[in-house]
Amino acid sequence: MSTEHIHPIFDRLLSREDRERQLKQRSKVLWLTGLSGSGKSTIAQGLEHRLYNAGYVAQVLDGDNIRSGINSNLGFGLEDRRENIRRIAEIARLYLNSGIITLNSFISPTIEIRNFAEEIVGASDFIEIYINAPLEVCESRDVKGLYKKARKGEIRGFTGIDSPYEAPLNPALEIRTDQLSLEESIETIFEYITPLIKQA
Amino acid sequence: MSTEHIHPIFDRLLSREDRERQLKQRSKVLWLTGLSGSGKSTIAQGLEHRLYNAGYVAQVLDGDNIRSGINSNLGFGLEDRRENIRRIAEIARLYLNSGIITLNSFISPTIEIRNFAEEIVGASDFIEIYINAPLEVCESRDVKGLYKKARKGEIRGFTGIDSPYEAPLNPALEIRTDQLSLEESIETIFEYITPLIKQA
Repeated sequence: MSTEHIHPIFDRLLSREDRERQLKQRSKVLWLTGLSGSGKSTIAQGLEHRLYNAGYVAQVLDGDNIRSGINSNLGFGLEDRRENIRRIAEIARLYLNSGIITLNSFISPTIEIRNFAEEIVGASDFIEIYINAPLEVCESRDVKGLYKKARKGEIRGFTGIDSPYEAPLNPALEIRTDQLSLEESIETIFEYITPLIKQA
Repeated sequence: MSTEHIHPIFDRLLSREDRERQLKQRSKVLWLTGLSGSGKSTIAQGLEHRLYNAGYVAQVLDGDNIRSGINSNLGFGLEDRRENIRRIAEIARLYLNSGIITLNSFISPTIEIRNFAEEIVGASDFIEIYINAPLEVCESRDVKGLYKKARKGEIRGFTGIDSPYEAPLNPALEIRTDQLSLEESIETIFEYITPLIKQA
């Protein structure tokens, strides 16, 4: 880490701006919403690479590092789903204040639950990205075999099958993963966010 | 952020080592334990400055950003205190994997609860620092007026008054804040951790 252009600070708490200056970026919360199988996590991981290779400091938050850790004591009932999203949004807010860009990949199926996350993060820092593919496409991918189980009734309340998915009404960006390649999807988001995360 | 010496990565998930390389540091979890009024948070904040000014990326986690945010739905009963520490340790682990040094400032009064945090973080990354001042000194400081309230019985289960504090048996470092100045305390920790957080 280079210390050039960093003014030493002694007499007050470090601010988000101090941290952003240190990391030579502006922090944002990218919120990727979409059906299971829409490609959210694959895109988030690819975008994390893309940002890293361009010198940005970013972190994916997804089921792999959240559900297995801090939210391991939550189930899939309505109240626990809300608490799941609340904690994720609070963690994204901590990272935001640390100057770090987070790439949050969660189905977050309802408008209400995404509004809730946005309220916690703050509207000016919350970038909603709709990762969209038709249900048939997501179901045909079925990487984890979850749709098959949901169709058999082995999983209840599965989004898209017996639980609704409400598409964002006004997302910052919509990515049609049945029409764009993975590289195109990543590049579209990268180009969209670059002016937002670049230091002036 | 300079991109020199960073190898582009395309075909796998970013690792903690990749992130540490980007930030030119190694990440650790510093766990500051001690009585209310011992100086934990003041030291953590000063150390955060010291690290920032030296080019390190560090983040204080303390009551101010944790209890008011992600842990705002927890009380002070035994079970909630355990859940409080569990979530903090999980967040510290997320930051650790993001390559970032955290300075955790929490009373965490028992050996059991600190062992619990250490288990979550991983022993090789967990640096326990005992911020120690005699109870009389902490009580005489009483910045927030909490000891007064505890003595009056207005607060129950207050550590050091009607709830025990178990000193660490084998901390990485012990800082006697009744004997060292704030600057000396910060410098002692900074010098101790520098070889641990410096990139080889």
